[in-house]
This record gives sequence, structure tokens and C-alpha cells, in this order.
Amino acid sequence: MIKFSVQKNDILDALTTTAKAASTKSVISALEGIHLSLTGNQLTVTGYDLELGIKSTIDVEGESDGVLVLNSRLICDIVRKMPSGVIRFDEYEPLKLNLMCEDITYSIMGINSEEYPVLPELSRGESFEISEPLLKSVIGQTLYAVATIDTKPVLMGSKFEIKNNELNVISVDGIRIAIRKESLLHEDFDFVVPAKTLSELLRLLSDDESKIATVSVDRNQGIFSIDKYTVFSRLLEGDFFDYTKIIGMPSNIEAVVNVRELMECVDRTLLLLNDKIKSPVDFTFSDNTLRVFCETAIGKLDQKIKCDYSGEEFRISFNSRYILDALKNTYCDKVKFLFVQNTALKIVPLEGDSFTFIVSPVRRR
Amino acid sequence: MIKFSVQKNDILDALTTTAKAASTKSVISALEGIHLSLTGNQLTVTGYDLELGIKSTIDVEGESDGVLVLNSRLICDIVRKMPSGVIRFDEYEPLKLNLMCEDITYSIMGINSEEYPVLPELSRGESFEISEPLLKSVIGQTLYAVATIDTKPVLMGSKFEIKNNELNVISVDGIRIAIRKESLLHEDFDFVVPAKTLSELLRLLSDDESKIATVSVDRNQGIFSIDKYTVFSRLLEGDFFDYTKIIGMPSNIEAVVNVRELMECVDRTLLLLNDKIKSPVDFTFSDNTLRVFCETAIGKLDQKIKCDYSGEEFRISFNSRYILDALKNTYCDKVKFLFVQNTALKIVPLEGDSFTFIVSPVRRR
Repeated sequence: MIKFSVQKNDILDALTTTAKAASTKSVISALEGIHLSLTGNQLTVTGYDLELGIKSTIDVEGESDGVLVLNSRLICDIVRKMPSGVIRFDEYEPLKLNLMCEDITYSIMGINSEEYPVLPELSRGESFEISEPLLKSVIGQTLYAVATIDTKPVLMGSKFEIKNNELNVISVDGIRIAIRKESLLHEDFDFVVPAKTLSELLRLLSDDESKIATVSVDRNQGIFSIDKYTVFSRLLEGDFFDYTKIIGMPSNIEAVVNVRELMECVDRTLLLLNDKIKSPVDFTFSDNTLRVFCETAIGKLDQKIKCDYSGEEFRISFNSRYILDALKNTYCDKVKFLFVQNTALKIVPLEGDSFTFIVSPVRRR
Repeated sequence: MIKFSVQKNDILDALTTTAKAASTKSVISALEGIHLSLTGNQLTVTGYDLELGIKSTIDVEGESDGVLVLNSRLICDIVRKMPSGVIRFDEYEPLKLNLMCEDITYSIMGINSEEYPVLPELSRGESFEISEPLLKSVIGQTLYAVATIDTKPVLMGSKFEIKNNELNVISVDGIRIAIRKESLLHEDFDFVVPAKTLSELLRLLSDDESKIATVSVDRNQGIFSIDKYTVFSRLLEGDFFDYTKIIGMPSNIEAVVNVRELMECVDRTLLLLNDKIKSPVDFTFSDNTLRVFCETAIGKLDQKIKCDYSGEEFRISFNSRYILDALKNTYCDKVKFLFVQNTALKIVPLEGDSFTFIVSPVRRR
């Protein structure tokens, strides 16, 4: 029976992080649990919902080795409400646990650990290292374009593609494409990580340049080692969208726009839209001016901002939210708008090719 | 047709505050609106849902007098999303309004102001002045005990009772009573203010001792003048609960408890409760010790804290949330617990009688 003492903040951190991977609602109650396993002074804490797993090993003062599964929400809440200091976990009878801190004793029931699933183990496979902030950036800038409906399940994740010593991270939802490129020395290979895993990775990844994450892949499993945490994830399988064709199409119209100004303009159109009332935002480029217009049953909005454009007057319409999502993820002051006739807008940085965000226009009747 | 120019922040403040009194959903669309009325350079902005009204008059640069009603949510959102600076309101055709700021023009429809209700006018009645922070405190400390179900509608508000140059503010929901007392020189009178009005007053009242609010009452209407705002409210009518009997009952058991410590103990019991699983928290007082215990299907919690108590062992049970609500509103480090046999707990300050919070115990089977 498991018995140990631990600093509140050490175990709270491990519990709340691994709890992100536990099921919130499952017919198998063990899947709603967090798995604790003590060997000596090493406590391994695991959350796993069969798709995503997060594991962490922390130092504790061990008293008696054992394993126990606890309801994740309850154990996180209990530890959070304990005073700062040492908490003693004491399984005094099989599956009966006392949690003690000062003059406070919670008594709760554990869940049989035999019902808990076994985490996949990687045999061998591809593996690469990448700095935490870089991994955070390539995931964070492309996650917005992942498909949210499962007409093609493989598109509900981002593709990591290593080719010619370059890492491309690509998300596609049918109307927009986000591509983020960085150099990475490794043999060619690729895999698709589900959006839920990517969201959890974003929470765990730091902005500290000196921290290195390791990414390992073995058939349909990915393992991300980030600081104290190991994230296990099922990978998505299937034919991903071939984005190279649309990326390669030449553009014939080009403008440079101020990102913040244009975001504010497009954001103002949202007041004229709701779940029932939809209308695209119209962009009209003329001599160094971009007119941003929207009209619905709620009202009309007409705005003009400056931009770098010198060509014939050119008008094109988009879904306001798609333009906002793309602009927000550029993290640039200014970007280039490249139009491939009337079939696509490519948003790229003024210099280099670190990202390409593609948005399909709305065809006007 | 109404035409004026105004600083964004001046009108945004007036709009968002008065919008609190506009209906969020009504069959009469004018009630979802904010009423604008311009005379010279004075713009009066009003929200009113027939129960609660908030009015403010601000300085603008008037161009053409007029009245217009605008959908409250839409106009607040539009003004909020405009750049800082001067916004021009221009009713260019009846009920058609342009809102202009820099190179941005929103065009929206107004609502016919003839459908807008007339605010009640006070003929004469009782009136008193009170400092804003004091009014905020007497409302804020008693609001928690207002009844939320309308079995007796008059209890869905707090009673303001002036008697013998004392103001008592009283809330009662059947299981608990909150009473807050302050001296106030005025003839005897009383009135009951609905909880919704009290919540809005709390938002408007400042902590500035130098600011004075005026409270006026005429039959079933109350008017609160607070800084730039005038709040109109229907008052509740009916026989209020007679709290004097229970207040007067002598207590036979007394303890002094630390508010923060006890709140933390009772708060921990909430983890063992949910919508389906309910159980009271048990207090057992013995030699300078208070044991706080709770047991449900989720688990068991046993805690001990110090308190000032010297009598026979005494056990009593309460609803955890009711104890937390009362303790939170004491704003004291320590309070006195006075028990009227097993029928009621009175929570009072160590000195004086500025508040009395009464909670009925849960009878154990």
C-alpha cells in the first residue's frame, strides 16, 4: 500500500499538469483518474485517456511502495485546498487513502489500478531535438488552421514534415492553410499530431531558449520530452493534403498591409455578424488605400486604411474570422498580401519564408 | 434629428453604465435600447426596463436636438471598438444613424423613441443623504441573504428601515438573516429595494468618503443619486419578515472564532459536495477547539482549529455555503458565534452591533 510525504507545491504541479490528459468523463472510471506509482523516493504521476498521456516523476519522501489511481478532479482540488507544507498520502487499507496536512485529514477512495491502461512504449524510431520556444512557435502559429470537423480525421492535427533539412509544420482545414518553416538537420520523415496534443504541448513549452525538447516517433505514437514532463500521443494516420501545389502557384497582385490596423478594421465587422447573420468582409485595394467594407441586416461599416499598393482597383471578399485568425498568428507589424488571381490570398512576411498563411476568398453572388 | 460629437470615453462610460438597466431580451425592442436625448450641449442617456432605470447627463458638442433609441448591446460594442477620440453621431434620415470616427463609418438603424417608456417622476417623499462607501457597505454586507426564489416576493430585496435615528438594512431568505446597522439622523420610515437594483448600486458606489449619495423614496419608487448617475427603482411591497423576535432571543453558548481559518475549513468541505451529494458540515466545540467535520459518498474530512470556547462539548450542523456566505461578509479577523440553543447561530462582531448574521442549523436525523 502506497505511503509517502511530499511538498504541496511539488505534487500540485505534477497533478494539475498530468490531469490535463485524464478523461473528464469516461465509462471506465480509471480513465478519469491519475495513476500514482511509488518506488523508493520516486513518485511517477500519470494521466492518460488512451489518446494523450502526460507523465512526470517527482522526488518524495517514500515510506511504502505501491500504486494507486485517484479521481483526477478530486485529488487536484483536495491538494489545492491544503495549506502550504508537507502532505502525507497514506493508503491505510487497500484503496482507502488518508491525505493529511497539519490538523486536516481527507479520507477518500482510490480506484483499482488494474483497470488503468498501460502507456505505449517506443521500440525505436525517429527522434530529433528542438529548442522549446521554437517548437512552441511552430505549433502555436499553425494550430488555428487545424480542421475542427472530422470529415477527414487526419486534418484534425498538424503535419510535421522534415524534408531537405527543413521542418515544415502544416495545418489545413479546407478553406485555409498555415505553414511554418524552420531549418532542422535530420533525415526526411513526417507525422501528424492531433490538435488536442498540440494544445497541451503549448501549455508545457517554455520561452527559455536554453531548454531543449525531444520529439520521438514510432509508427502511430509520438513522445515529447519537455522539462519534467513526458507527453505521449497517438498520431493521426491518413493522406494529408498536398499543399505544395497551391504554395507554388504564382501571385499576380501584391500589397503590404499594417497588421494591427487591418485587424482592428476586420474586428469591427464582427459587430455586424452573429450566428444567424453572416456576410463577408470586402477588401478593395486602390492607390495605396485599402477599403474594408461590410454590410448586413444589423448595419453597414465602411473604413479606409493606408497600405502599399499600386495597381488597378482590385476587390475581393473573405470570412472576417479567417482573416483575423491568420493576421493574429503572423506576429508581424507588416505583412505581404499576395493574391493568386481570385482563388487565394497568401499572407507572408516581408522578408524570408518562415510562414505562409493561405485563405480562400468568399465568392460573391 | 439628433446630431452631436462627443469624446469616446465620455459616452462609452455613460452607455455601458446605463445599459445595465436595459432589458437584455424583451418583446418590446425599445426596452432593449438606450434612450438618447439631446438638448443644446446636454445629452441624457437612459436605460430602463420598467423595474430599474439608470440615467446620466453628459456634455457633448450639440449640433441638432433630438431623441433616438439605439440597441444597447450594439451601440456599446460599436463605441468600444472605435479609436480613442471624437465620435460624431449623425441621424441623417429619421431613425438612420451614422457613427463616424476618423475614416470609420458605422451605419445602423435606431428604434422609434415613442415606444420607449417614461421614467417615473417623484412628487415628494422621504429623502436622506449617506456617504457612498457607507451605503456600499450596508448593501454589500447584507445582499448575500436576499431570497432568490419568489415564494414571498418582498423578500427578494433588502429592507431599509430607519428607526430611532438608526438605519437597519435587513435581508432574509428563510434560513438566514443579515442585518447591518448604522446611525442615521432621520424620521422613521422604511422601504424594500430589489436585489437587482442593489447589485447595480454596488457597481456605481465608490469608496471615496467625500462622495455623498442621495436616497429618495415616494410610495413604490426609489431614486438613488450617485455621482453622475441617477438610479430609478421600483420598490418591493408586502409584509417583510419580523426579525426583531429572533434578534432578541438570548444566547446561551458563546465562542470566538478566527474568520479566515474557519472559512478555509468550511471551504474544504465543498469538495465532498455536489449538486446530487449534499451533507451538512458538523461543528463540535470543546475546550478551545473547534472540530469541523463532513462525510459524504465522495469522502470524509476531519479538521481541528483553535477557538475561544470554554463550556461543555457542543455539536451543531450547518449548510457549508450558508456559513461561508455569512463569514465572508463579516470583513472581520475574528467574530463571536452566539448560539440560541439549537435553533440559530448569530454571528456578531467582537465589539458593537454593526452587523448580526443569523444562520439556522441543519437538523440531523
